Amino acid sequence: MSKIYIKNQNKALDYSPSKNLLEILLENDIFIDNPCNGKGSCGKCKVKLSGESLPEMSETEMKLLKEEEIKEGIRMACLVSPEGDIEVEVLQKERKHRILSTGYVPEFKYDPSIKKIAFKIDKPTLDNQISLEDSIIGALGVEEVELQVIEEVKDIDGTATAIFNGDHLLGIEKGDTIESLCGIAIDIGTTTAVATLVDMKTGKEVATASMINPQRKFGLDVLTRITYALENPKDSRAKLQYEIVSAINEMVKELCGESGVDQESIYEIAVAANCTMMHFLLGVDATSIGKSPYAPLFVKSKNIRASDIGIVANSRARLYCLPSVSSYIGADIVAGAYVCELHKASGNTLFIDIGTNGEIVLSNDGKLMSCSCAAGPALEGMNISFGMRASEGAIEDVKIGENGIETEVIGNEEAAGLCGSGILAVVKELIRTGIVKKNGAFIKKEKLDESDYRYDMIQLNGTKREFVLKEGPERILVTQSDVRQVQLAKGAILSGFYALLNKAGIDMGSLDRVMIAGQFGAHLPAESLVGTGILPEEVRDKIYYVGNSSKTGAYISLMSAESRKEIEEIAGKMEYMELGASEGYERLFADCLLF
Amino acid sequence: MSKIYIKNQNKALDYSPSKNLLEILLENDIFIDNPCNGKGSCGKCKVKLSGESLPEMSETEMKLLKEEEIKEGIRMACLVSPEGDIEVEVLQKERKHRILSTGYVPEFKYDPSIKKIAFKIDKPTLDNQISLEDSIIGALGVEEVELQVIEEVKDIDGTATAIFNGDHLLGIEKGDTIESLCGIAIDIGTTTAVATLVDMKTGKEVATASMINPQRKFGLDVLTRITYALENPKDSRAKLQYEIVSAINEMVKELCGESGVDQESIYEIAVAANCTMMHFLLGVDATSIGKSPYAPLFVKSKNIRASDIGIVANSRARLYCLPSVSSYIGADIVAGAYVCELHKASGNTLFIDIGTNGEIVLSNDGKLMSCSCAAGPALEGMNISFGMRASEGAIEDVKIGENGIETEVIGNEEAAGLCGSGILAVVKELIRTGIVKKNGAFIKKEKLDESDYRYDMIQLNGTKREFVLKEGPERILVTQSDVRQVQLAKGAILSGFYALLNKAGIDMGSLDRVMIAGQFGAHLPAESLVGTGILPEEVRDKIYYVGNSSKTGAYISLMSAESRKEIEEIAGKMEYMELGASEGYERLFADCLLF
Repeated sequence: MSKIYIKNQNKALDYSPSKNLLEILLENDIFIDNPCNGKGSCGKCKVKLSGESLPEMSETEMKLLKEEEIKEGIRMACLVSPEGDIEVEVLQKERKHRILSTGYVPEFKYDPSIKKIAFKIDKPTLDNQISLEDSIIGALGVEEVELQVIEEVKDIDGTATAIFNGDHLLGIEKGDTIESLCGIAIDIGTTTAVATLVDMKTGKEVATASMINPQRKFGLDVLTRITYALENPKDSRAKLQYEIVSAINEMVKELCGESGVDQESIYEIAVAANCTMMHFLLGVDATSIGKSPYAPLFVKSKNIRASDIGIVANSRARLYCLPSVSSYIGADIVAGAYVCELHKASGNTLFIDIGTNGEIVLSNDGKLMSCSCAAGPALEGMNISFGMRASEGAIEDVKIGENGIETEVIGNEEAAGLCGSGILAVVKELIRTGIVKKNGAFIKKEKLDESDYRYDMIQLNGTKREFVLKEGPERILVTQSDVRQVQLAKGAILSGFYALLNKAGIDMGSLDRVMIAGQFGAHLPAESLVGTGILPEEVRDKIYYVGNSSKTGAYISLMSAESRKEIEEIAGKMEYMELGASEGYERLFADCLLF
Repeated sequence: MSKIYIKNQNKALDYSPSKNLLEILLENDIFIDNPCNGKGSCGKCKVKLSGESLPEMSETEMKLLKEEEIKEGIRMACLVSPEGDIEVEVLQKERKHRILSTGYVPEFKYDPSIKKIAFKIDKPTLDNQISLEDSIIGALGVEEVELQVIEEVKDIDGTATAIFNGDHLLGIEKGDTIESLCGIAIDIGTTTAVATLVDMKTGKEVATASMINPQRKFGLDVLTRITYALENPKDSRAKLQYEIVSAINEMVKELCGESGVDQESIYEIAVAANCTMMHFLLGVDATSIGKSPYAPLFVKSKNIRASDIGIVANSRARLYCLPSVSSYIGADIVAGAYVCELHKASGNTLFIDIGTNGEIVLSNDGKLMSCSCAAGPALEGMNISFGMRASEGAIEDVKIGENGIETEVIGNEEAAGLCGSGILAVVKELIRTGIVKKNGAFIKKEKLDESDYRYDMIQLNGTKREFVLKEGPERILVTQSDVRQVQLAKGAILSGFYALLNKAGIDMGSLDRVMIAGQFGAHLPAESLVGTGILPEEVRDKIYYVGNSSKTGAYISLMSAESRKEIEEIAGKMEYMELGASEGYERLFADCLLF
């Protein structure tokens, strides 16, 4: 056993020298950003190292680091396999992320699956030696009573309260406990999870908590996590499940603590998530999602005991998982389609959830067709030179003008990088100002007059052109490669729109509305979306933001069995179109790349 | 820690001196007969003791032992709480019991709840990214598929076999396994358990095994076991359940070993048992059965995972427990009523299962009414001076005549005592020969002439008259008290018949048939039953023996879902009459006491 001393966190870890430093740190819950999941390609897992027996630097590592960094002792954690005692200085701090938890809520019928009924139990007599089971059946009109429920009742004298899940008797409590009936609505995203404590008697949202999805230690996106699962067939499923269940338990505890609600009062947890997160949550093998033909093991809704996966609530609590459509159209999108009432909408509505994957649903007079496009992580600030997630210090808006560059930074801190909305805003401005051309290439500096306000904003790094967003020692640059990343995302999403519209025989001008859902989309102003060409000019005035419609769908499925059924029907009817398998898609994609 | 050395079994046990010797021996699975469950009243738990620090004899102990026994060092295990190292000689040997496993089988429709279907699973394509769940749903026409079933299928390529319980998909196996489909039918009695391995494809009974119910260590009858449960609320349920589940597992293993059937081929276990045994089997609190108003916690049939209670078979195997009617009319009687087709019978049929409790069902043109009477253990050879269960060495038939006494002994061994049929036979003969009068009293020896063949058969023990069944050092006596025990049993059962007939407005002459069920009844010839007056003369020629109709009912419920439903309907419709609560019963009982 050797030791790692984390200098700036005053922690010491024992480790067996066989893994790389990134793995060791993540296993010990030391936060290290690693978008490429330790593949040695993103260059984000930098740490400062000292010690006697540090391994030599590989060529890959040298390439990813700047000369100054190498001098300072900076290393890439995923490329270092330490052997003796070493000292590590962690360079990133965990930042407070901004997570969207609210949104538009449609009307629905109050009719929760979980119900309570107070009743009295008749005692047997010598003339009527009725079994306790039959007494319960008589009082509640159920068909059967599970043995453990009968046992629950045997010492109850007088009033009792029955808890039902639909027609199914879940349990019986002593006394009248009608007043205590809460649920939790959860949206699990690949990046973040949001939970709301709901008073199911009134439908009131009592409190909301959010967290970064702790599965990120196994990769930032769906595919790297699936790769992790593939490479660790023995324990990856248990680990991935443990992380998300622990996060849920932490949020439930926080919500209850904050609002003074007893955890025992929680009888149902409803979860919307993408299809991979749902597989991970339920401990189901998700690896088939990651390889052609991309068929998941399940898409239907699930209704199981919450305790079966380790969720801590009332022992009888249920876990309801909303249904998905396919591997890449998950329950989060189905929830969104329900919340936006796409299945009832007349005319043509386009629903988009923009993230690493862009999910798109077209409603043509209520007929739903969907597709998913691999936008890549650029729009979430990843794979971008100075990219970061939407946390404190991230630039979220940019204006470029004759008087210079204006930026808006989350938390009003010193700018540390660009989050998704920031990168989109800057690219929009680069296009608007002509610094970036329609084909995505930077304008040549030599074509600009030195008096042009744009002249000093462009610099050459060897032969590569860069946009200087912020000068100084903590400078922030936007590179040609960054612009290409955005361009690829734009091409992917826009071609998805067109493919759906083509299939339905509709042109862009016939769209009545475009609904933007999700954490990320909510922070993208129409100006940026249209300015970068992710959405065409024709829909500029038809854009609506619906917020976290995934969690809203989970909330409604807690509160209304009728809506739950409708959501399941939507999932069953929504068509899915695999873009990669559709004719002429490659050509369409190429056309959509132009800004 | 002190030591107990079991001399004649060459075993040594460590023990903490706080319990009595009986408890210590039973906990260590040393067989000791204890009909009174360690209450110091039956005098059956005799052992020979030696050692340095033996506790002194109490007055109770002295009273229960003969002078010779005291001299030999015989003690009552339940009345000795040892402290130091001691030596024990166990006086009883475990005897081979005769257990009934066969009987009459009515016609039924072949239609097992457990079914298998072979099918092929379609693989998804890029054009049809169908989830594995939906492929299964499509192939099998089910409504839902549990997650673990989906997981079972994910590596199957080609043919698979689905296992159904009714409409519910239990699991899916690789390849075509249609040929492998077995079940186990079990009758659990208070004293014995019998299991049959059934090939569910053909209905063939492949093999049968039987065991003494190992719960006897906690008491020989239902009430002493319930008392044990009451006195040991913490762990008695787990212990009682463990004993019977272990016995089932042992029998299943034996059956599979004997017939070369893989334990994995067993998909269902069907159990008939009295209501208390069913509570114990399922780990449910049975204590309410033992106290007024004698209401059980449940009577309905149960269908659960066999593994939930620890039964080792196919991991998907179900456990079906037949329904009871009340605390003292159990699933064994319901099974019997079905097997004897009482619900379809025209005319008047009386069904009796004679044991410690006599259960009686009257079918009046298919309308079923039942009662249970506390016959006591005399008819099973218990609480009788020289009583024993029906095992090797037990006298099972007796003839008394001018030429002396003839006996039939089980296993043709030296007679060691009287089993139930033996005690009934001897009492019948005592009445027939006038040695015992109608009121149950022995004839006075002085009223007999010395030349009378009966004269030497009667002896005086103080003022008490005894019948000498066997002379010599290993003599066997029948005492006045023994006759009284049989008389009480006779009175209880006969009054039960009359109470049922009275309630239905039928007289004994209108009975069309009397069906005798069960382990014990099968060994009681009509001659003994009528000769002792347990059954009246009028029905002598209407008696039928149906054998172990409890296990037959379990067998049919394995083989036919339709019959299972009928059995459940019978349980729901059968009325139950509590004799103790019925008007005029005490008077009726007194009348029925006369031989």
